[in-house]
Amino acid sequence: MKIICSKSDLVKAVNISMRAVPVRSTVPILECILMKASLNRITFTTNDMEMGIETIVPGSVIEEGMIAIDAKIFSDIVRKLPDADVTLTTDANMTATIVCGKTKFNVSGHEGDDFTDLPAVEKEDCIEISQLTLKETINRTIFSTAQSENNKLMTGELFEINGSQLKVVSLDGHRVAIRRVELKEVYSDKKVVVPGKTLQEMSKILSSEADDTVNLYFMNNHIVFDMPGTTVVSTLIEGEFFDIDHMLSKDYETRMNVNRQTLLSSIDRSTLFVREGDKKPIIMDIHDGFMKMTIDSPIGSMDEDIDIEKEGRDIMIGFNPKFMIDALKAISDEDVTLYLLNPKAPCFIRDENETYTYIVLPVNFVK
Amino acid sequence: MKIICSKSDLVKAVNISMRAVPVRSTVPILECILMKASLNRITFTTNDMEMGIETIVPGSVIEEGMIAIDAKIFSDIVRKLPDADVTLTTDANMTATIVCGKTKFNVSGHEGDDFTDLPAVEKEDCIEISQLTLKETINRTIFSTAQSENNKLMTGELFEINGSQLKVVSLDGHRVAIRRVELKEVYSDKKVVVPGKTLQEMSKILSSEADDTVNLYFMNNHIVFDMPGTTVVSTLIEGEFFDIDHMLSKDYETRMNVNRQTLLSSIDRSTLFVREGDKKPIIMDIHDGFMKMTIDSPIGSMDEDIDIEKEGRDIMIGFNPKFMIDALKAISDEDVTLYLLNPKAPCFIRDENETYTYIVLPVNFVK
Repeated sequence: MKIICSKSDLVKAVNISMRAVPVRSTVPILECILMKASLNRITFTTNDMEMGIETIVPGSVIEEGMIAIDAKIFSDIVRKLPDADVTLTTDANMTATIVCGKTKFNVSGHEGDDFTDLPAVEKEDCIEISQLTLKETINRTIFSTAQSENNKLMTGELFEINGSQLKVVSLDGHRVAIRRVELKEVYSDKKVVVPGKTLQEMSKILSSEADDTVNLYFMNNHIVFDMPGTTVVSTLIEGEFFDIDHMLSKDYETRMNVNRQTLLSSIDRSTLFVREGDKKPIIMDIHDGFMKMTIDSPIGSMDEDIDIEKEGRDIMIGFNPKFMIDALKAISDEDVTLYLLNPKAPCFIRDENETYTYIVLPVNFVK
Repeated sequence: MKIICSKSDLVKAVNISMRAVPVRSTVPILECILMKASLNRITFTTNDMEMGIETIVPGSVIEEGMIAIDAKIFSDIVRKLPDADVTLTTDANMTATIVCGKTKFNVSGHEGDDFTDLPAVEKEDCIEISQLTLKETINRTIFSTAQSENNKLMTGELFEINGSQLKVVSLDGHRVAIRRVELKEVYSDKKVVVPGKTLQEMSKILSSEADDTVNLYFMNNHIVFDMPGTTVVSTLIEGEFFDIDHMLSKDYETRMNVNRQTLLSSIDRSTLFVREGDKKPIIMDIHDGFMKMTIDSPIGSMDEDIDIEKEGRDIMIGFNPKFMIDALKAISDEDVTLYLLNPKAPCFIRDENETYTYIVLPVNFVK
């Protein structure tokens, strides 16, 4: 095999490929990037068995062939090369020679025959969405997936298509994040749970250009993200996702409108007094026109008055500050509205059109 | 005690004070900032017993007094305050109340009576130097102090005044860094060893403005860095520093001139193949007009040709790449000159005026 690519194209391809390289695998070949040169087309493939990526690398194929090279080493080499054309040649012993300007690297590779291929993709039943929109939707929900594997479904996100609407839901037992996205067309109904790990990597692969689109293919056991030059295939999490509709009550006794940044800064300050592992709640004491926020801990105490608009009953309610901060950070509106029923019932933060709904369970406190 | 300061002035003062707060101390009061308000002057003092800092905080004294507050907590609070005036009040129980806008914090403090005062400073026999020059001199030598405490003197730097010249020397047994700075006046001779830790902190306290100056006072057991508003007192390391003059031979058989950045990038690439703990040298094979640099490791190999100007004999010599990189990074000249005698003798990198001399011992290698 002999190929010539620019350093910058190699760096791009390697950055994408690395997203599906397992840190350590029982199948050592999966710690490699599989490089294939054929018919004037160069592809890099990586696969951590949950998620696989194939990306096309622009460049010239001088001689067809295939080699698997340790991803970490190859990535380090490519990054440190001078900015110029890079020639990669392999010999019969599967040694790769990488030449760039006056620099020459030799590394040993492996035949790629035992590399686990990506599952075959049926390119039908496709949903089109802006890459930026998908990236933002992931970033604005991913934080409320569960970190522990105790309940596998909680580590993923529900992707539900209903007519022209994509609904993405994540929950970890203490809070729920829901985002709704209007698609350009009407599609047949779909409902899958995508692993959080896949979505975390996808949010880094997806571009930040609103005009770039990604096609989503929903298969029986897989979801495919198809972008120009790059295809990502991921397994799905099996099982029925939690029925959240019964939680989505519209009842409330108190409706509070507040500047998002003001509330966020104030809660952020309160976290000074929260040491890891201790579950000190912030207490919101909501009155007409103002809210007193307090936190009390062995280290010290804080209180702060915040201007609000309020309808309905006065209420005093406690929250884990982290959960409130995560939700408020995932919103870009200037003001947010909180809906509260009683000190034991969840708090809803949602906009009028329900493009977002964040639900945070309250915390008991002693006053 | 009651004082009013701006948030930004408090942040500045806290940032400086934190440099002398021990992470954990057998004398818990030393984990505090001692705050004193007297005669319209507010000072913050910290002391880790090796180094002490006193800094003046601009602000108004409403009521004189003194309190010691946990440095980490106070620093966190101050950083998170809104941008406004901050009022700090203490009560008879040594509780501090910090009010800024609508935010109020309470933290408990301690009486400052058992805080260890900084040693008294005799402000005579003073050396004046630009803060930027001192900062750069430290940054360009500090990396070659020893990390291990086996030989205490190696963890510090020699500061030697000779006429109008300041010479700073650090060495760790594998390399030596020497910087010479021309002072504006002629001073009496001085020779002290300043702890590396003090210098590391000083390099962060010193400003990057060439016009700002710092006064150095050399006392029997202490050195004082006196800047406008801030005084740093440090212990010295006792003992006679290594005599390096006998090492400073001017003999050489090979003199090589090379572009610093080219050499640096090339050595940097070679470090890809150096895993922590393994001592793979880079080998420089120096000929007329070019040098071949190679590294060979179980992971792979690299070689690269670099254009050089050479006088004298051809030579092949091995180095620890890290030591070469550190020295080359500490130089700002476009080209550097290496002086070599034989493969067992140290390499000298120095400029014509000897404002800098970096000495790196070679490494044995098998070819």
